[in-house]
Amino acid sequence: MIRIKLIPLEEFQRVRAAPIDKYERLALISDMCRTNTLSAVKRAGSGHLGSSFSAMEIVVWLYYQEMNIMAVGLQSPDRDIYFSSKGHDVPGLYSVLFSLGILPEEKFLKLRRLGGLDGHPDVGIPGIEANSGSLGMGISKGRGMAWAKQLLDRSGRVFVMTGDGELQEGQIYEALQAAFHQRVGNLTVIVDHNKVQSDKRICEIIDLRDLEAKFHSFGWHVARRNGHDLRQLDWVLAEFKQIIDRPKLLIADTIKGRGVSFMEHPVALRTAKGLYPWHAGAPDDQSFSAAHQEIVERINARLAELGLLPLVLKEIEPSEKVVRSSLVTQNALGEPVSQAVKSKLSDGASSEYVVEAFGQALVEIAAKRPNLVVLDADLAADCRLRCFEETYPDRFIENGIAEQDMVSMAGGLARQGLLPVVNSFASFLASRANEQIYNNASERTKIIYVCHYAGLLPAGPGKSHQSLRDISLFGALPNCIILQPCNAAETRMAMEYCVNQASENCMLRLVIGPSPRIIELSASYQLTPWRGVVLKEGSNAIMFAYGPVMLHEALLASEILEENDFGLQIVNMPWLNRVDMHWLKEVVAPYESIYVLEDHSPVGGLGDFLLNALNNEVLLKRRRIRKFAVEGYPACGTPPEALKHHRLDGASLASRILNNIE
Amino acid sequence: MIRIKLIPLEEFQRVRAAPIDKYERLALISDMCRTNTLSAVKRAGSGHLGSSFSAMEIVVWLYYQEMNIMAVGLQSPDRDIYFSSKGHDVPGLYSVLFSLGILPEEKFLKLRRLGGLDGHPDVGIPGIEANSGSLGMGISKGRGMAWAKQLLDRSGRVFVMTGDGELQEGQIYEALQAAFHQRVGNLTVIVDHNKVQSDKRICEIIDLRDLEAKFHSFGWHVARRNGHDLRQLDWVLAEFKQIIDRPKLLIADTIKGRGVSFMEHPVALRTAKGLYPWHAGAPDDQSFSAAHQEIVERINARLAELGLLPLVLKEIEPSEKVVRSSLVTQNALGEPVSQAVKSKLSDGASSEYVVEAFGQALVEIAAKRPNLVVLDADLAADCRLRCFEETYPDRFIENGIAEQDMVSMAGGLARQGLLPVVNSFASFLASRANEQIYNNASERTKIIYVCHYAGLLPAGPGKSHQSLRDISLFGALPNCIILQPCNAAETRMAMEYCVNQASENCMLRLVIGPSPRIIELSASYQLTPWRGVVLKEGSNAIMFAYGPVMLHEALLASEILEENDFGLQIVNMPWLNRVDMHWLKEVVAPYESIYVLEDHSPVGGLGDFLLNALNNEVLLKRRRIRKFAVEGYPACGTPPEALKHHRLDGASLASRILNNIE
Repeated sequence: MIRIKLIPLEEFQRVRAAPIDKYERLALISDMCRTNTLSAVKRAGSGHLGSSFSAMEIVVWLYYQEMNIMAVGLQSPDRDIYFSSKGHDVPGLYSVLFSLGILPEEKFLKLRRLGGLDGHPDVGIPGIEANSGSLGMGISKGRGMAWAKQLLDRSGRVFVMTGDGELQEGQIYEALQAAFHQRVGNLTVIVDHNKVQSDKRICEIIDLRDLEAKFHSFGWHVARRNGHDLRQLDWVLAEFKQIIDRPKLLIADTIKGRGVSFMEHPVALRTAKGLYPWHAGAPDDQSFSAAHQEIVERINARLAELGLLPLVLKEIEPSEKVVRSSLVTQNALGEPVSQAVKSKLSDGASSEYVVEAFGQALVEIAAKRPNLVVLDADLAADCRLRCFEETYPDRFIENGIAEQDMVSMAGGLARQGLLPVVNSFASFLASRANEQIYNNASERTKIIYVCHYAGLLPAGPGKSHQSLRDISLFGALPNCIILQPCNAAETRMAMEYCVNQASENCMLRLVIGPSPRIIELSASYQLTPWRGVVLKEGSNAIMFAYGPVMLHEALLASEILEENDFGLQIVNMPWLNRVDMHWLKEVVAPYESIYVLEDHSPVGGLGDFLLNALNNEVLLKRRRIRKFAVEGYPACGTPPEALKHHRLDGASLASRILNNIE
Repeated sequence: MIRIKLIPLEEFQRVRAAPIDKYERLALISDMCRTNTLSAVKRAGSGHLGSSFSAMEIVVWLYYQEMNIMAVGLQSPDRDIYFSSKGHDVPGLYSVLFSLGILPEEKFLKLRRLGGLDGHPDVGIPGIEANSGSLGMGISKGRGMAWAKQLLDRSGRVFVMTGDGELQEGQIYEALQAAFHQRVGNLTVIVDHNKVQSDKRICEIIDLRDLEAKFHSFGWHVARRNGHDLRQLDWVLAEFKQIIDRPKLLIADTIKGRGVSFMEHPVALRTAKGLYPWHAGAPDDQSFSAAHQEIVERINARLAELGLLPLVLKEIEPSEKVVRSSLVTQNALGEPVSQAVKSKLSDGASSEYVVEAFGQALVEIAAKRPNLVVLDADLAADCRLRCFEETYPDRFIENGIAEQDMVSMAGGLARQGLLPVVNSFASFLASRANEQIYNNASERTKIIYVCHYAGLLPAGPGKSHQSLRDISLFGALPNCIILQPCNAAETRMAMEYCVNQASENCMLRLVIGPSPRIIELSASYQLTPWRGVVLKEGSNAIMFAYGPVMLHEALLASEILEENDFGLQIVNMPWLNRVDMHWLKEVVAPYESIYVLEDHSPVGGLGDFLLNALNNEVLLKRRRIRKFAVEGYPACGTPPEALKHHRLDGASLASRILNNIE
């Protein structure tokens, strides 16, 4: 395992105290924060380096020089406020907060871990002023804070960082117009204009064109500077301070991946054939070492030039290997589990991605359906749409980070007889474009909404990305079938169903991460409308679940319970708001205890649907349904941490079932 | 009752055939369509005149001169397409479609009636190309149609009308950027720039500033012309036809209420002290007659100048008086109802508006809560916020038609310790700003969301405005209490609760129309957390309902059933996602049949919540819950029509209950 080193707080204190020019000092601090960001992301196994690096000088300048936070304290009502609207650049912010002593080392090293630092900002963390990660909300929220400061006669300014890809979100323009109209002069927006969104250049996705002209047309005071040049930042913010009759916006020209030669975007894009590889995810060992060495050597060279000693780095404990699902070492009674149970756990080699199967199925099905078109909101790689994009470029529509526009465009396409397949993460698509989805559905056309990254896992990105409400958000549409497949084969069948059989709208819910195990279906299995399928026999109780993540935990629970002589029948129920009552009656007939395991909130998921179905047919008389669901906000952490926190891992489920009976 | 006259189709045919200059002819047709729009709205009792009139010349020009529809037919894939994104100007469009023989007279006269013409456009109506009424979606949808035409190698252009207030919606800018990037050259947008939104000037609400500069900055070809000058429209659209490498946008300067002197906005605003009174709603008899006479006289004068005979008008049947709720003339068995039942129906004098009580309570409570601030998205009059705005101008925030921005701003205000009360119609607030509401809630601040115009009624505006999904859209938030009061007193208590007692977010659901009867609560009634209250005793079954509309129908059903010797106990349950289990156990103890009457979709409302509660406590053994809810899309029509269509009027409910038992 690779050794990861941290620049400890004392080293920051040494450089801060060194009698050197402030610009020199903060350039050094910026690079030192880059080093720690790199280490934290590497240790976490994921996180966003590219934009943490592009924004680094700006964040360092704000915290060390511009804002009053260190003087008045984090609790002062008169403090200046900074937050990033895009939010995914938070590893960079965390490293700055660590360098200032606001975040202790122990916390700083727990990036994307339970009880540590969320993958996107959360106000529960010291120094974090706003939850963000859902793009486009920051200027509105910052304006609220700034307006409140005025009403409450508080001093302090509000600084909001936005991405540039983020400027594709329409809410940005709502916020711009209102902030000018309301003359919110204590609000400053800084656009980290690094020119690259997820993995492509903005001008290729949806060009932003002349940003200065746009912002001017909304009435703002606008400046454009080099975002890595501390002198320019100093001067422009001094200029902004004098302007109090209107909000101010700085377009900061930056370089994505700034500070590591091979991560900087012009080079990185060329190397990776046009796809920027350092937006999200931890670097491999070799890249990490090279990047770390490059920054540290640059820092040390500069320290030497300034007559200062080289950095003293501190080796940090490696984190345990992150696994895909719950770890089972003991059964529900606390005894070690048998080898039989252990062997069912995926060893990685036997895993799969249902989303990968979706991407393949899309291309295959599209060959026979010339009216099928695919829409994307800048998540083509994550949603596995690249193959379709390359195979059918004429039928692929990139809309940029603008889910509402994408969905309404799909409505127009459908009205012309096309079959749109609309893609984004579930938390964005189901929620932000909800009214547009309703409007389309009310036209009785057919559209397939693919809600990627549905459910609790991966839990590292945090609650802005984990989607536990999407079934409920589609649930009250009168003409939409919701389904979630459990493995690659069922995913292909589900897509086939949505495209070629369904007459209504479909919402296809997909897990984005690796399946913890391949959920086995018989070779003859056919997805049958409104029917589920028994995956494991058991005579004491029955559990309905869906999707690879929760079916794995359900099976695990059943396997553990088997060792306790309790038979838990496991049913894969891919239909989340339709059921064949004949089948349901038959399948629940032998059981009094019915469990539903939700990869969703307890409200509005499969459990509520089945409860209604059983109640309607008066089948509940001697039965009770119990839902195991994600209660509260989803925890951030590794898969085992998040599952265990919500008591949804196999061992907890087994234990909850046994306790229920007792 | 006032006599309403129509200009029949033959008169349009006469003018079309007359040997006069095309501009003269279409100016006449425009005024003739205005006349019929006025009559249709007057007959319907509601509808939007101001913007129907401001857009009239544009719509007439498009249909009579610019588009190929009359030549190729409404079914041709190569037809030109027109629709209005704002949608509320559809009475004007209907009158044009009538004048062309696309809509028959019988249909044209059924504006806002069941089986007639929806208050906002619906594709089920001949000539209507898109459902609209939720603002800001049209350019995206039009782009989808235009893009599809290109893919499918179809000719025909797409024309989308937008309002100007509508330009406050962020989705507009998403659509603008994508349409340019995708070079959708067969798309033309026309902004009906009449300078007035709901009832105030746009520059007072949220100023749009230099529209030409904005649209230019997004890359579009932009022109600005007088939208009432047919020659200018002719020339600019001819110019647009030559431009095929980019989308085109016409800023059409128009006058809201154009064509009726006292409805034109500069005059009308002055007369009504700054509030434009002709945006929505039918004119009173005197105004109607004056307006009608003015236009008809102008038309006849012009006809005379052109040597043509004056108009021959046709008197149309008056519509029956529209009442507030279901009409009961017979009981569930078809017998005439007794005088006792009839007397319970509101005669109008004894009615009330819960929203009025909300507006008053807001002002009263705010006196003691200096941290309470109110946010509005251009529905201040409908949401009864004017009194607050005038009493506490410093604590009133007008955000314009930009719900997402409003909600995120509220998040920022709450983070500064203020208590924001966020207002809009339920269908817009719960749906369009859903992700922003989630984001705010995840910060664990407290915000009160007031969802106005919740439920089925009024049913005239149609499915874009009727909100039957809002409970489900808030339901899976982990920290939000949803409640709906049934009368003015309970509304005041609910606001008191939300402001002074609740520790979590609150969603207050309000009916916007008049209560069909005043729901009576005892003088000593206190809103008690998680408990409902029995309104009417009955021993055979129990029904839970909420809000004045459905409680009236529930009471009516109970009154009718009483005559059939069936006792239906009616419980007002204002808490839609919280319940005191001790109370619930006690209240349901005597009953096997439990009914829940939803002013909502069957999915995600009170019924699902109570079903869960009873299931959790194993109280369903011998019981069954039946939900009566708004199935499918909500019907457009008068209150009795819509209620009856959904079988939710008292008589239908009584009958359904009796049939259930048999």
